Amino acid sequence: MQRNPQLNAQGELQHLLSIEGLPREILGQILDTAESFVGVTEREVKKVPLLRGKSVFNLFFEPSTRTRTTFEIAAKRLSADVINLNIALSSQTKGESLLDTVANLSAMQADIFVVRHASSGAPFLIARHVKPHEHVVNAGDGRHAHPTQGLLDLYTIRHYKKDFSRLTVAIIGDVLHSRVARSLIQGLTTLGAPQVRVIAPQTLLPSGVEALGVKVFHDMRAGLRDCDVVVMLRLQNERMKGAMLPSAQEYFKNYGLTAEKLALAREDAIVMHPGPMNRGVEIDSSVADGPHSVILPQVTFGIAVRMAVMSIVAG
Amino acid sequence: MQRNPQLNAQGELQHLLSIEGLPREILGQILDTAESFVGVTEREVKKVPLLRGKSVFNLFFEPSTRTRTTFEIAAKRLSADVINLNIALSSQTKGESLLDTVANLSAMQADIFVVRHASSGAPFLIARHVKPHEHVVNAGDGRHAHPTQGLLDLYTIRHYKKDFSRLTVAIIGDVLHSRVARSLIQGLTTLGAPQVRVIAPQTLLPSGVEALGVKVFHDMRAGLRDCDVVVMLRLQNERMKGAMLPSAQEYFKNYGLTAEKLALAREDAIVMHPGPMNRGVEIDSSVADGPHSVILPQVTFGIAVRMAVMSIVAG
Amino acid sequence: MQRNPQLNAQGELQHLLSIEGLPREILGQILDTAESFVGVTEREVKKVPLLRGKSVFNLFFEPSTRTRTTFEIAAKRLSADVINLNIALSSQTKGESLLDTVANLSAMQADIFVVRHASSGAPFLIARHVKPHEHVVNAGDGRHAHPTQGLLDLYTIRHYKKDFSRLTVAIIGDVLHSRVARSLIQGLTTLGAPQVRVIAPQTLLPSGVEALGVKVFHDMRAGLRDCDVVVMLRLQNERMKGAMLPSAQEYFKNYGLTAEKLALAREDAIVMHPGPMNRGVEIDSSVADGPHSVILPQVTFGIAVRMAVMSIVAG
Repeated sequence: MQRNPQLNAQGELQHLLSIEGLPREILGQILDTAESFVGVTEREVKKVPLLRGKSVFNLFFEPSTRTRTTFEIAAKRLSADVINLNIALSSQTKGESLLDTVANLSAMQADIFVVRHASSGAPFLIARHVKPHEHVVNAGDGRHAHPTQGLLDLYTIRHYKKDFSRLTVAIIGDVLHSRVARSLIQGLTTLGAPQVRVIAPQTLLPSGVEALGVKVFHDMRAGLRDCDVVVMLRLQNERMKGAMLPSAQEYFKNYGLTAEKLALAREDAIVMHPGPMNRGVEIDSSVADGPHSVILPQVTFGIAVRMAVMSIVAG
Repeated sequence: MQRNPQLNAQGELQHLLSIEGLPREILGQILDTAESFVGVTEREVKKVPLLRGKSVFNLFFEPSTRTRTTFEIAAKRLSADVINLNIALSSQTKGESLLDTVANLSAMQADIFVVRHASSGAPFLIARHVKPHEHVVNAGDGRHAHPTQGLLDLYTIRHYKKDFSRLTVAIIGDVLHSRVARSLIQGLTTLGAPQVRVIAPQTLLPSGVEALGVKVFHDMRAGLRDCDVVVMLRLQNERMKGAMLPSAQEYFKNYGLTAEKLALAREDAIVMHPGPMNRGVEIDSSVADGPHSVILPQVTFGIAVRMAVMSIVAG
Repeated sequence: MQRNPQLNAQGELQHLLSIEGLPREILGQILDTAESFVGVTEREVKKVPLLRGKSVFNLFFEPSTRTRTTFEIAAKRLSADVINLNIALSSQTKGESLLDTVANLSAMQADIFVVRHASSGAPFLIARHVKPHEHVVNAGDGRHAHPTQGLLDLYTIRHYKKDFSRLTVAIIGDVLHSRVARSLIQGLTTLGAPQVRVIAPQTLLPSGVEALGVKVFHDMRAGLRDCDVVVMLRLQNERMKGAMLPSAQEYFKNYGLTAEKLALAREDAIVMHPGPMNRGVEIDSSVADGPHSVILPQVTFGIAVRMAVMSIVAG
């Protein structure tokens, strides 16, 4: 049997690479730890000394100000020293290989590598080559996974719904290109949500998506009926320009979330979005800013979740 | 009566958006607080714990290494955690609105947003939308205001001249495009300087500039006579190339500060410049580096003034 | 007699500009201090409070993520506040002179300027103009010097070989364009290494290189014989495209380090490289990753050496 590359010999979290394959207990540990940090970020002094004197290297092989910022904030609130490395602009262009770059950084005595990379699997490759006391956190690899986003989604759902065991969750939009959707579906399945739905046109669904344990809807109204949780996905601008979709207007008509469509979900349904939003494309402003929206709390919880992951692997 | 958006219900400084409308007492409080920090920046350990555990987000929607650096240094000397966000290069290009960007950052629990934006009024818009415990400091918005530069100019004048009540101040050069000039004129007026002069060709003055309470001179020699304080403005390179001015040489002849022209001011006059200088265009090197110049002390005081503003709003 | 610009009146290290002209005692002090820091970087809490409250400004007039990162890490492990300034993209483009830029930054009360510049001598120029309590560390100037790289090479050699007095050291490759080679040769000479060899084609050697006290070899096999230390230099990609060299393959055949060629050196020889490596051009992967390679320990020691230099000048 192949050992899970994310866990050490004692079954503890060593790296966070993907939600896939993480045991229910580990997910619970991360969410519980995050809960303890939500209080910290609301205090006057938003800082705990858990990672004092540790070095967190933000390795961004593709730029992402938003994600880099959340990790930087999380690390600083744990009192770590943060080094930002925008590798896209640097030594990779000198022809050095990914593994040589990482070996070098590892020799500078990092404790945590936060890795964003356009290629699926890059953080796994790096995790196989770092030293035993070094930890890798995947901040998004290609279309593959974005586990901290999935975890913050799980945290948000648990925060508002307490229990996963009776939830119906709908994930709506560009599932095909979304690393967020994949991570979230795996987490929901592990935590026992009985029904996860995906709602999208055929062109925006991966083939064989049902194998992930989800129920497919092409009609948004049918899919939204009686949902507890509605997760909207961002429609990348480049999709709208291509042949995949007729137009942004047409997409909004069929798959944009409006107050009228949302009324088909349960009365206490929550609406989530990973951001940044395309208002008027996948979501109407009245919903984004409305009483069901928990989009901004997601951001707040995201800091606590990243603090939890980093303190668990390296604390 | 509309409440001043910079003050809270108790009349305390909540945001620093503009010198316009700030009461004399608040200006005095900032300058007095800055005075206490000038000592700190000269110590071996240039640090006080006033903002420990607070998060300062440097939101630069237009790049400015110099201003960003001064705020970063000031925040770190107050022991705050600083996150630099060069927004020009990031999520704005994904089509997210300014308010969505700020709402997201606000959800990450910032304490202070330092904002630089090419559009006049952007920091005011942001200040209207942040949470009650969050504070906005304007680091320059369009042609509108640059209040910390104005405050450091006021600090410098007070440092060398002690009292505003008998001063004659001349501001020379491109008043039209200068957010520095506007902020300084407002501050001098509030603090009771009896005579503020602007010296410039007609093409570099805003129409109706006299309404700000200044006396206009087109002849530099006449305007400099008996001045206590001489504030030179930077002539943007792009102005020199346009139709507004005949040539850099011609400008220097008429409005460049030379030792010979400076001799018309009072014997103990001080010379200021916000930087970066165009030597040989608006100022001669012999003056820039001469005994009347306080251009480098301005930079030192600028750190203390920014520490003062941040510690007052969030301390 | 002209005083060494790197030493103060008491003969203590004031700036680190070049290994050239540094007395043996100063080199020893740096290497001894670095030794005490190697332990720190391997601890759980990789931090000492030696530069707490001090400001380190990383002034990079040409980009170099790798070198900037090592200085940033070293400064943070000394508890300094670090300000990164990528000057190539900022005020230099506004036409400000190097000395005005530095005078401004100096007015912000820096303690250490780490300077990288494409022009040889720029850090010397800056060192002549900063205030007495400010210190300049050269992080690479043109083709001239890269003293901290030279020092980490010396540290690595001393670590593995204990004593310089009987060593034969070979430096192989593009000596002509290498600021690393120059710094290292000077250090080895000062510390009393009896034989330093350079091995390269004539086109990659500076004319009159023998004056530095080295022995020249054009045949790699002859030059490697009985060496204790083998230092490979990076071949810049742009050299390979020019008229200087026939081809990368041809270069590798003549001057690339293979296991077969390395066998001519002493059995306990160590192999060094400043990175980033061109595998298959100047060095074969089997050697780079083999038992003689100390290339990654060099990186680790580099942090300790930079901590040593900064703590000695400003501690």
